[in-house]
Amino acid sequence: MSDPISDLIAAADARLGPKGVISDPADIAPWLSDWRGRIHGQARAILAPASTGEVVGIVRLAAEHRVPLVPQGGNTGMVAGATPPADGSAVLLSLRRMNRIRSISADNRLAVAEAGVILATLHDAADEVGMRFPLTLGARGSCTIGGLTSTNAGGTQVLRFGTMRALVAGVEAVLPDGSLHNGLSGLKKDNRGYSLDQLLIGAEGTLGVVTAAALRLVPAIAGRAVAWAGVDTPSGALALLRWLEARTSAIEGFELVPASSLELVLRHIPGTRAPLAGEHPWHVLIEATTADAGASIAAELEQLLGEALDSRIMGDAVIAASEAQAEGFWRIRDSIAEAERAEGQTLAHDISVAVADMPRFVVDATTAVERAFPGTSVSAFGHLGDGNIHFHVRAGSRAAPDWYEVEGERISRLVDDLVTAAGGSISAEHGIGQLKKAELARLDPDRVRTLRAIKQALDPLGIMNPGKLVS
Amino acid sequence: MSDPISDLIAAADARLGPKGVISDPADIAPWLSDWRGRIHGQARAILAPASTGEVVGIVRLAAEHRVPLVPQGGNTGMVAGATPPADGSAVLLSLRRMNRIRSISADNRLAVAEAGVILATLHDAADEVGMRFPLTLGARGSCTIGGLTSTNAGGTQVLRFGTMRALVAGVEAVLPDGSLHNGLSGLKKDNRGYSLDQLLIGAEGTLGVVTAAALRLVPAIAGRAVAWAGVDTPSGALALLRWLEARTSAIEGFELVPASSLELVLRHIPGTRAPLAGEHPWHVLIEATTADAGASIAAELEQLLGEALDSRIMGDAVIAASEAQAEGFWRIRDSIAEAERAEGQTLAHDISVAVADMPRFVVDATTAVERAFPGTSVSAFGHLGDGNIHFHVRAGSRAAPDWYEVEGERISRLVDDLVTAAGGSISAEHGIGQLKKAELARLDPDRVRTLRAIKQALDPLGIMNPGKLVS
Repeated sequence: MSDPISDLIAAADARLGPKGVISDPADIAPWLSDWRGRIHGQARAILAPASTGEVVGIVRLAAEHRVPLVPQGGNTGMVAGATPPADGSAVLLSLRRMNRIRSISADNRLAVAEAGVILATLHDAADEVGMRFPLTLGARGSCTIGGLTSTNAGGTQVLRFGTMRALVAGVEAVLPDGSLHNGLSGLKKDNRGYSLDQLLIGAEGTLGVVTAAALRLVPAIAGRAVAWAGVDTPSGALALLRWLEARTSAIEGFELVPASSLELVLRHIPGTRAPLAGEHPWHVLIEATTADAGASIAAELEQLLGEALDSRIMGDAVIAASEAQAEGFWRIRDSIAEAERAEGQTLAHDISVAVADMPRFVVDATTAVERAFPGTSVSAFGHLGDGNIHFHVRAGSRAAPDWYEVEGERISRLVDDLVTAAGGSISAEHGIGQLKKAELARLDPDRVRTLRAIKQALDPLGIMNPGKLVS
Repeated sequence: MSDPISDLIAAADARLGPKGVISDPADIAPWLSDWRGRIHGQARAILAPASTGEVVGIVRLAAEHRVPLVPQGGNTGMVAGATPPADGSAVLLSLRRMNRIRSISADNRLAVAEAGVILATLHDAADEVGMRFPLTLGARGSCTIGGLTSTNAGGTQVLRFGTMRALVAGVEAVLPDGSLHNGLSGLKKDNRGYSLDQLLIGAEGTLGVVTAAALRLVPAIAGRAVAWAGVDTPSGALALLRWLEARTSAIEGFELVPASSLELVLRHIPGTRAPLAGEHPWHVLIEATTADAGASIAAELEQLLGEALDSRIMGDAVIAASEAQAEGFWRIRDSIAEAERAEGQTLAHDISVAVADMPRFVVDATTAVERAFPGTSVSAFGHLGDGNIHFHVRAGSRAAPDWYEVEGERISRLVDDLVTAAGGSISAEHGIGQLKKAELARLDPDRVRTLRAIKQALDPLGIMNPGKLVS
């Protein structure tokens, strides 16, 4: 059989050898659906180059045969950005065999990791040289540096160290024309025109294949302290954060938790218990860290929270007395989504507005949604200090077998409209991929037109991750 | 007379009123040459809109009449990036009337400043709210936020706070199709595809007109200490920096000065004197600051340098005992270029390599240049901690009236070749503009092809800053 895909696979086989082409359907199957299992694609092969040179070869073959490539790392994304088209018109390009840490230096505070390096592996490697790569998220045991870079991943440590955009010092990538962009030399200053590094970060593989990244390291943590505080309102929570930030630069995590989410966790997640004895409408989990082995971060945080209590900046607070208690506080925060699923149908929205505007947004948007859809209830929780909230809507009394399909879309449109009116983003962390394409096009056609012009300029043949973002 | 330029000027006049169109040749003349007075252009008018809406109007008129615009702020650039073409085919677009600080907040650590706001004005405004905008450079009294953003400006505080790319939280810009990109909401997380903010930073006005920027503020300085140290080699200087950085996060300036540059300054600049009694082949100026009013930064730096001396990390050091002495140290550093000009012909190169590679580069490239052109001598000085050195070559015994034109170009090509071979950048801070276009095209044709594709996609009519970067 001779068709473009077969020709590409045969040519790739000749170039990459048997390890480089996976064509057994049983081996391909796990990589055809997105992480949450909602979107399913087809592909006749996974091409798995082991070096940047091999990626260059594959991209040139793909251009020659006009067969699109879908780059894939750990396949842990939330918007089906690494899932191939359903019609089988593309092949998967796995970067997982490119898994070397090419260099790591505490002196230079830099690591160069290939696209297939798993985040947890990088954490361990940094640890071994007395340093730390300060970005982490739930999928750390599966997600890869290439995917994290291509999606500008965030996580729970963004408050202090930023997203991947701030942590990537440079990118190595194969562009759609088969040329190599080498940004790995880690220049701190470089003004040779538009930043291709920054263009490729967060491009979801639509402008080229990220093959490696130079990553900034920070000193290892010498001590951490975790606290739980009760406040009256989201604006009280933000006031507490501002108050703390004016007095210390150690605050690394600041997660908002509404009372209703805490109740759900206590009801559905075994072994959890309320950190504070009293009742509070809102809670925050606070994590502070230090790289100074001589400092007592727990004592510092305790004193600060004591002063905050005396100044009536908050209602009550407790510092975790042990590592186990600290883990217990984090477990509450990390179990909210699971508890919601146990409770019933829930719609998730990963949204951001300016940090200063978030308290008002949470209150106003909650009212608007619960009024427009009586019986639903909103949980707004997460990274308050980043202006990034998980705005979840539970079906409540409106639950129905087709609730997601029928009413869910209307609710999500309302949320996205409210976010847009507030100058915010309908995708704070997760990206656009396949799942948010239509909403982005509906809400910001000017932006989509501009992004599409860039896409078509760099990938005129459309061989890079078709059907994602603006393609 | 009816021609496209006259038609554009007439239409602009109707739209902007008398203040918005400058057509008296005497008023235009000062803005037709670059900062250093080497490149001269022509333009029949300066259009000076006073609002973002007026910029939108002008860009649409420019597209309609196919007349290119040359955006201009303080006109303090080093590569003739704001100088109009010599044939008079474009008009100047001054952003200087857009000079409002729209908002500034210590709580949010953000200011929103229009393109025409002068850097010194922003410094003062930040100071008034107890904060600081931590980027500064020699032209602070003339350069504007729009120009600083469009050139990704650096300066002497980059070591700690980064270039504009790290300090701009978002950009408002009018794109070549007349649409408005509004990135001013200051979202900390936003993954709606390619970052247009980052694409516009450092684009030298070739992809659109920056009309305002959201800028990050940091706490005001409560105390600073300035020291001068003698070391044996550039690698000894970097070792000292690493040693200090492992012990404090207060180091904000770390400037390398070779003995030959110090000698030139002492010879040509009245009132300067050597900070140290002994002789050292290399020197560094160190500045440390703190935002903590309770800390004694001078005592901290003195103790650290004492330990460094005991550990033989450096040869000798002195801490400025007064503000006047601190200014004296900085005056030496800031007078090097002036002293060189007084000594004779000098070629300047604004280059970067990876920080760790810079000590070896300085030594190797100095040898290579002085060997290839016997009689010349190199001064490599500046921002060692950023991997950004001013690599200056003095004509010495080869001085001749046509030295710049005849030999200068050959020397610059050798320097640029050495930088490129070391994985570095031929423009660390200054950009490409008109002056480095040919060198960029010679050294990195792949990169130029990719940048040009982006340029043509967003500005198909070529109305944005013609003749600069890749247009």
